[in-house]
Amino acid sequence: MKTNINIAIDVMGSDNGPEAVISGASISKTRFPNIKYTFFGKEDIINKYLKKHKNLSDCVNLIHTEELVLPEDKPSLALRKRNDSSMGVSLKYLSEKKVDAVVSAGNTGALMAMSKLQLRMLDGILRPAIAASFPHQKGEFVLLDLGANTECNTENLMQFAIMGSEFAKIVLGKDNPKIAILNIGTEPDKGKSYISETGKALENSFLSRNYIGYIEGSDMTKGIADVVISDGFSGNIALKTAEGVAVLCSTYIKKIFENSLVGKISYLLLSKKLSTLKEKLDPRKRNGALFLGLNGIVVKSHGGADAFGFASAIDIAYEFAFEEVAKKIIDNISKVKL
Amino acid sequence: MKTNINIAIDVMGSDNGPEAVISGASISKTRFPNIKYTFFGKEDIINKYLKKHKNLSDCVNLIHTEELVLPEDKPSLALRKRNDSSMGVSLKYLSEKKVDAVVSAGNTGALMAMSKLQLRMLDGILRPAIAASFPHQKGEFVLLDLGANTECNTENLMQFAIMGSEFAKIVLGKDNPKIAILNIGTEPDKGKSYISETGKALENSFLSRNYIGYIEGSDMTKGIADVVISDGFSGNIALKTAEGVAVLCSTYIKKIFENSLVGKISYLLLSKKLSTLKEKLDPRKRNGALFLGLNGIVVKSHGGADAFGFASAIDIAYEFAFEEVAKKIIDNISKVKL
Repeated sequence: MKTNINIAIDVMGSDNGPEAVISGASISKTRFPNIKYTFFGKEDIINKYLKKHKNLSDCVNLIHTEELVLPEDKPSLALRKRNDSSMGVSLKYLSEKKVDAVVSAGNTGALMAMSKLQLRMLDGILRPAIAASFPHQKGEFVLLDLGANTECNTENLMQFAIMGSEFAKIVLGKDNPKIAILNIGTEPDKGKSYISETGKALENSFLSRNYIGYIEGSDMTKGIADVVISDGFSGNIALKTAEGVAVLCSTYIKKIFENSLVGKISYLLLSKKLSTLKEKLDPRKRNGALFLGLNGIVVKSHGGADAFGFASAIDIAYEFAFEEVAKKIIDNISKVKL
Repeated sequence: MKTNINIAIDVMGSDNGPEAVISGASISKTRFPNIKYTFFGKEDIINKYLKKHKNLSDCVNLIHTEELVLPEDKPSLALRKRNDSSMGVSLKYLSEKKVDAVVSAGNTGALMAMSKLQLRMLDGILRPAIAASFPHQKGEFVLLDLGANTECNTENLMQFAIMGSEFAKIVLGKDNPKIAILNIGTEPDKGKSYISETGKALENSFLSRNYIGYIEGSDMTKGIADVVISDGFSGNIALKTAEGVAVLCSTYIKKIFENSLVGKISYLLLSKKLSTLKEKLDPRKRNGALFLGLNGIVVKSHGGADAFGFASAIDIAYEFAFEEVAKKIIDNISKVKL
């Protein structure tokens, strides 16, 4: 097990600017005192904010980069023209094993494309996937793919099941995470052909005892599955719809406590519980999606994450840097025959 | 405009039994005094509950049916063996114009399959769609298809745009409802090929001034679109995920008010506002999905809807029975050339 974890931070990628990113790094440092950072971005800007965080004074290596990846950059453009950006150089450091993980809040498509090119896929993996954990009634579950692959086949989904299980073992701490396939019904003939084929392949694989069948969107939050696998299009629709509804719920709740004296008094009485609820419903607070299937740990933070959100993305990178996930995934991929 | 609307009710389809259905009919009767019903189901059971509702005493025609469509019946089985069921006979009455609409809380797949066979599609419509309205920050929007078509092409989505617009004009009361396509990003090259093709087709159609582009799941609840079109697989994932998150939010809110005296006092103080919130978050209260594209009005109620939920499904059937939606859809379909 490694004792010093060095996390590369793309300081320039956040919608909230470098301040949120650097404050996030400072928060994670208080949780993991032996963490080290390599910051990538504009030196003068970084130094300005770095001064404000005393706990970062002796653990940050700063690499100046001039170039930026813009939110509107297409992946193809990023590959051609953004190699010298804070994102590009941080991934180069990871490919050269100078750092243990990269955390970026930048353009997802560009980050995935550059990660694939710089890091290459793990042996046997056909497509990387984006995975993250979400709350359900009894705890949390892992959902993947969240948008790396618009179209998927049976083999892709099988690999997502393997990678998602390893992810769930770490983030949920479960030895045998229960796996389900996202579908529009639970009957065997529901949905698309690659879904039923994946179901059969899982039943015949070493994961058979963990496979529980199809799951509908409404059941994901019930807590019956630990890992939900999906093509990236449907997974992204589920993720974003959940975000939208959570925000809508927050608005409704806010209205209850507004516009009346009774509401305001109740708000004061319940303020602690309400702020916990607010955090639960705020997608920016549930932050950090892992790119699975690459030769290196890349964590995508929500572009709009605040300092606490960014810190939770760093936490994920830190936890994974400690585990030899890649080796386990490669071993398990080789067990599956389709 | 018709003065007497006769709604066929499949009394046997609800998970909550005939009582919820008949109570729902009674609620709608108070809202629309000139409504008439034709009830389909087991005579003795229906008569038992009918007695309890005086306002139904002279407006119900009762047709006895012995057969039932079971929740686990596949569409193919329903087509072969359930023609004499409460669902089957009610659709037969609609096809023979003996009633103006059918409302059922039964098996969705069976209802869609039997509706297609009995009613046939409107001239020019290739595939029917399931549509319903949902809350957003500023009101409501219409989403379709919610699950009738797992795979869709450009022409299907174009027809969904036309049918969804007519639906939105009635349920939202908007003359020029804004149309968006559900996608995993808003850039023109995002998503699947039939999505970008539909976008281009909409830009070149008579609907161009209402078309606002792609929409992500997280933006549907912001209130920027009135009609969101999608293939039935993604639409169903969005619908069910939204339901799941709404239930999760309700659980969180409940916990705030439990387990403490302060919570219980606040609950009493806010009880009226909280029950409004509860209704907003309860998918069974937002009830009634319309099957669009058929020669007849079929409204699917949530299987678990209570009396108030079922009444809202009847309301939708009643509103549509007044409008000549079919003619408008046929006229508009003929305007589109792909």
